[in-house]
Amino acid sequence: MPTIRVPATTANIGPGFDCLGAALTLYNQFKFTLRSLRVTREGSPQEPLKITATGAEADRVATDDSNLVYQAFCKFFAHLGETPPAVEIEIAMNVPLARGLGSSATAIVGGLVGANVLSGSPLGQDEIMHLAIALEGHPDNVVPALMGGCRLAASGIDRAWEICELNWHSDLVPIVAIPNFELSTTEARRVLPTDYSRADAIFNTAHLGLLVRGLETANADWLKAALQDRIHQPYRQALIRGYEAVRSASLSAGAYGMVISGAGPTLLALSNGAQAKAVQTAMEKAWTQEGVSVDVKVLQIDREGVRCEV
Amino acid sequence: MPTIRVPATTANIGPGFDCLGAALTLYNQFKFTLRSLRVTREGSPQEPLKITATGAEADRVATDDSNLVYQAFCKFFAHLGETPPAVEIEIAMNVPLARGLGSSATAIVGGLVGANVLSGSPLGQDEIMHLAIALEGHPDNVVPALMGGCRLAASGIDRAWEICELNWHSDLVPIVAIPNFELSTTEARRVLPTDYSRADAIFNTAHLGLLVRGLETANADWLKAALQDRIHQPYRQALIRGYEAVRSASLSAGAYGMVISGAGPTLLALSNGAQAKAVQTAMEKAWTQEGVSVDVKVLQIDREGVRCEV
Repeated sequence: MPTIRVPATTANIGPGFDCLGAALTLYNQFKFTLRSLRVTREGSPQEPLKITATGAEADRVATDDSNLVYQAFCKFFAHLGETPPAVEIEIAMNVPLARGLGSSATAIVGGLVGANVLSGSPLGQDEIMHLAIALEGHPDNVVPALMGGCRLAASGIDRAWEICELNWHSDLVPIVAIPNFELSTTEARRVLPTDYSRADAIFNTAHLGLLVRGLETANADWLKAALQDRIHQPYRQALIRGYEAVRSASLSAGAYGMVISGAGPTLLALSNGAQAKAVQTAMEKAWTQEGVSVDVKVLQIDREGVRCEV
Repeated sequence: MPTIRVPATTANIGPGFDCLGAALTLYNQFKFTLRSLRVTREGSPQEPLKITATGAEADRVATDDSNLVYQAFCKFFAHLGETPPAVEIEIAMNVPLARGLGSSATAIVGGLVGANVLSGSPLGQDEIMHLAIALEGHPDNVVPALMGGCRLAASGIDRAWEICELNWHSDLVPIVAIPNFELSTTEARRVLPTDYSRADAIFNTAHLGLLVRGLETANADWLKAALQDRIHQPYRQALIRGYEAVRSASLSAGAYGMVISGAGPTLLALSNGAQAKAVQTAMEKAWTQEGVSVDVKVLQIDREGVRCEV
């Protein structure tokens, strides 16, 4: 019975709003076991669905058929025109919910890949990716969760999406500060303008280009300039209590920049390996002083994506 | 007496509006000779300024002190707080005027670098670059004209501009189709909207990222998708008679895409080396059939930038 490990992801990354995402070395695990519905000598048949969750915030995970892992599991079989089998799903949680670290993408990718493995892998990665994008509504988190690494998604001509991997320099460290409050994606979307000036559109375009080169070279000057954004952060940062204090602290400790992870409220700093511990300490201290309980993790980029554990 | 060779440049390049430019193997040359103002035995003193121009469209070059090469030459000395010396400037023209190939950038860079060389090179490349950007008003053409290669410019934090070179794959060939009509930059600016939808801003951001990766890998799928744009081309292409016919012809002949060079009307196609000749022929035929006389050149990326000839 397969156990599927799926990485957390950080999307947007400064100017990369709605197109850029990277997989992180923080994982949820999903174990799938087929259940027997036959009446056995021991008594009544098993229920067709059993979901259990352990780990961080496990008590908040739905255990009925509204569970997102199960929804994705069913979507896979619907895509094949089949009825989903009775299944037990055991979820081991490490990615916090609704914090901007792609927890829903782990559920979608976990459910689809679990169903695929149980079925003898009739679908390839491309088909799984398109099902995952359809379920999530955008590619930013599900694509790196599936493939690993840092991935850019842009609409294609001959196909819906062109996905390219950005080279992420080995000395470039992501540090995530996860606060103990949530920010709804709906609210985070609501504060964005519908239109932008030509200057702002060009600003983000130019800085995304600089970011691509900064990520692959770890050039400090490029990264510092490139992590600026005018599409989402100026509007969303006011929703995150302590944003400016944590940002200042991270920069003073040597981070190249600090951005909102996904739709927030998690904050992502990038630094070199030598400064990472100091940046972690500074972000933790600054946010705590603002009265926010926070868990700051020094992570790496996950290069592998979803994996079936053996 | 120095002769300065400056490459033509193609700016914008699809989604790279107002931030991306590349130097091309097509050059203007500027020879600077100091003049004597002393009365000699032979007669009256030389005029303090003499400008001659030869080559393509040479009769349209101003030969008085409104000449842009001379304006840049004077700007250099003004920056040093000095009076410009009497000078003869001999211009050998290959870059057509007002066609979107950076002819004014060649003049600005030529004038500044000529003055610098005549003065014993007191200014470094960075200072020359900032003077050139100030004269031109934007970095797209003057930066690659100075430095060569394909360059991205984004506003910086500690300094005005961060400039980074994009790796341009050796098998990726620029083909420029130069028509016999002009398009004023003012008119080309006038047709642009002042605001863009969030979707359009994100579209260009994502595709610029894909273009950076496409240029360095020559990945055909990425380049085809990446050369799309929603900031300038949809508005400007109507100003260029035959645009759609030339574009279709270039794609049918194997180009990855076709874009407007600078503010136009020159059209730039990108293809691999094997297809370049076919693309050239197709563009020439298509534009001629539209009644436009056109010169189509298969070029390379100039990797060197401005050069003082010996």
